[in-house]
Amino acid sequence: MTRTVYVNGQYLPETEATVSIFDRGFLFADGVYEVTSVLGGKLLDFDGHAIRLQRSLDELEMKNPISKDDLLEVHRELVRVNNIDEGLVYLQITRGAADRDFAYPADDVAPTIVLFTQAKPGLADSAKAKEGMKVISIEDQRWGRRDIKTVQLLYPSMGKMAAKAAGADDAWMIEDGHVTEGTSNNAYIVKGNTIITRQLSNDILHGITRAAVLRFAKEAQMNVEERAFTLQEAQNADEAFITSASTFVMPVVEIDGVAVGRGVPGAVAARLREIYLDESLKTAI
Amino acid sequence: MTRTVYVNGQYLPETEATVSIFDRGFLFADGVYEVTSVLGGKLLDFDGHAIRLQRSLDELEMKNPISKDDLLEVHRELVRVNNIDEGLVYLQITRGAADRDFAYPADDVAPTIVLFTQAKPGLADSAKAKEGMKVISIEDQRWGRRDIKTVQLLYPSMGKMAAKAAGADDAWMIEDGHVTEGTSNNAYIVKGNTIITRQLSNDILHGITRAAVLRFAKEAQMNVEERAFTLQEAQNADEAFITSASTFVMPVVEIDGVAVGRGVPGAVAARLREIYLDESLKTAI
Repeated sequence: MTRTVYVNGQYLPETEATVSIFDRGFLFADGVYEVTSVLGGKLLDFDGHAIRLQRSLDELEMKNPISKDDLLEVHRELVRVNNIDEGLVYLQITRGAADRDFAYPADDVAPTIVLFTQAKPGLADSAKAKEGMKVISIEDQRWGRRDIKTVQLLYPSMGKMAAKAAGADDAWMIEDGHVTEGTSNNAYIVKGNTIITRQLSNDILHGITRAAVLRFAKEAQMNVEERAFTLQEAQNADEAFITSASTFVMPVVEIDGVAVGRGVPGAVAARLREIYLDESLKTAI
Repeated sequence: MTRTVYVNGQYLPETEATVSIFDRGFLFADGVYEVTSVLGGKLLDFDGHAIRLQRSLDELEMKNPISKDDLLEVHRELVRVNNIDEGLVYLQITRGAADRDFAYPADDVAPTIVLFTQAKPGLADSAKAKEGMKVISIEDQRWGRRDIKTVQLLYPSMGKMAAKAAGADDAWMIEDGHVTEGTSNNAYIVKGNTIITRQLSNDILHGITRAAVLRFAKEAQMNVEERAFTLQEAQNADEAFITSASTFVMPVVEIDGVAVGRGVPGAVAARLREIYLDESLKTAI
């Protein structure tokens, strides 16, 4: 089936959806993105993603080519025409197309905006959530502004391939002896009754799902400690898990070949996944 | 005038030259590039660029969609049809278009190849080479594999804008107290009779012009020391300069507002520029 996608104001068949070879997203990775999950045909935490999108654009002094209302309308229209029940909507904005120059182009160059959907049946009732993920550790070699959600994703992509080659599902990245995050998700451990995850800084993505899960955890009277943790601490933890917009809360049962806890998904991760799905669905639009 | 560009085997008007929105160069910065200078309608050090291109592709386990002979032919044809006397040829190869996934796509996905020219009249007889460049220093926040010439160029682009905002021409990047390189060039200082430039590693681009200039310097009996230097050392040097495929050898006369030497282009940089241009033209094809 050919998807309908959105490019610069037009709804197009995916096979006809293109950008100029001079697009700065293509030549300079000069672009930002968001991924919003869809459950039951509705968007999860659209507001959170719209706010973070604006922050990424602001940090890069990039223009926003679309109002929040119009952006919501495009998301909904793509979900509708592509019959997405469970899946996601990908959104990318770049600084637009201009003759190649490291300096940003003139102000009259229009940003490029692209959206497309991906159907992901079984997203909520995930087999992997029952089984748990295996992760490996790799050095964090990314640039210094991981708080800006740019398309400079080659290293996370290489990390995902390294994980696959090692028979694992993902990689956790290590900097100065501490875990920063997964290739496309935030990382957590549970020790006793405390959920531990790295504090916000330029070192990690400010996950929308992270913010929601920590809020729900506090509301459920769980202890939350925001600090960096080591790989050894993670391997010796009672539980480990990740969060992201497209995996929600996903248990991690093995790190570099070492079983975490009893090597099966833990109760805290399971409970947080349940709360997150319940609460997010209530506010889905 | 509309340029003719090359995209995946076709010569096209630049206005019709596009790639899929699913191209991994656009979505993941999963691509590499080369820039080859043109003087008198001939390509400078084509072999050097072709060899480095293959190294970048190998480091990323990316397929090369074109033979070296065919690549040369495309370069020459673009120079011819676009009447490039002085300028450059830009080449980019990406892992191709596939539905978005951090993991690399299946083996049958064809890489994307794009080439275009830029006319740069006055490239050899440059006014800036007589005047000298001003640079500022910024922290080096790039990823860890700067030896691979990827399109993850957002930070260098931000650096160029920071330089412009400060009334300078470019930025030198500092890591652990030492200069790595410029935003799109290698950095050098001259102290006494010695040319000092950072040793090759994953921290800097392995410049094609750098290799040629160091070879010519040694042939001309100049001392070359390959080691890291600090910003203070640079500000106190007799001369400073940069090299790149598109600027050749370009003097730096001011660093963070401090004049280097007497604040005018130095004799060593001028001589190396002359030798580089003379020697490169001899082997241009």
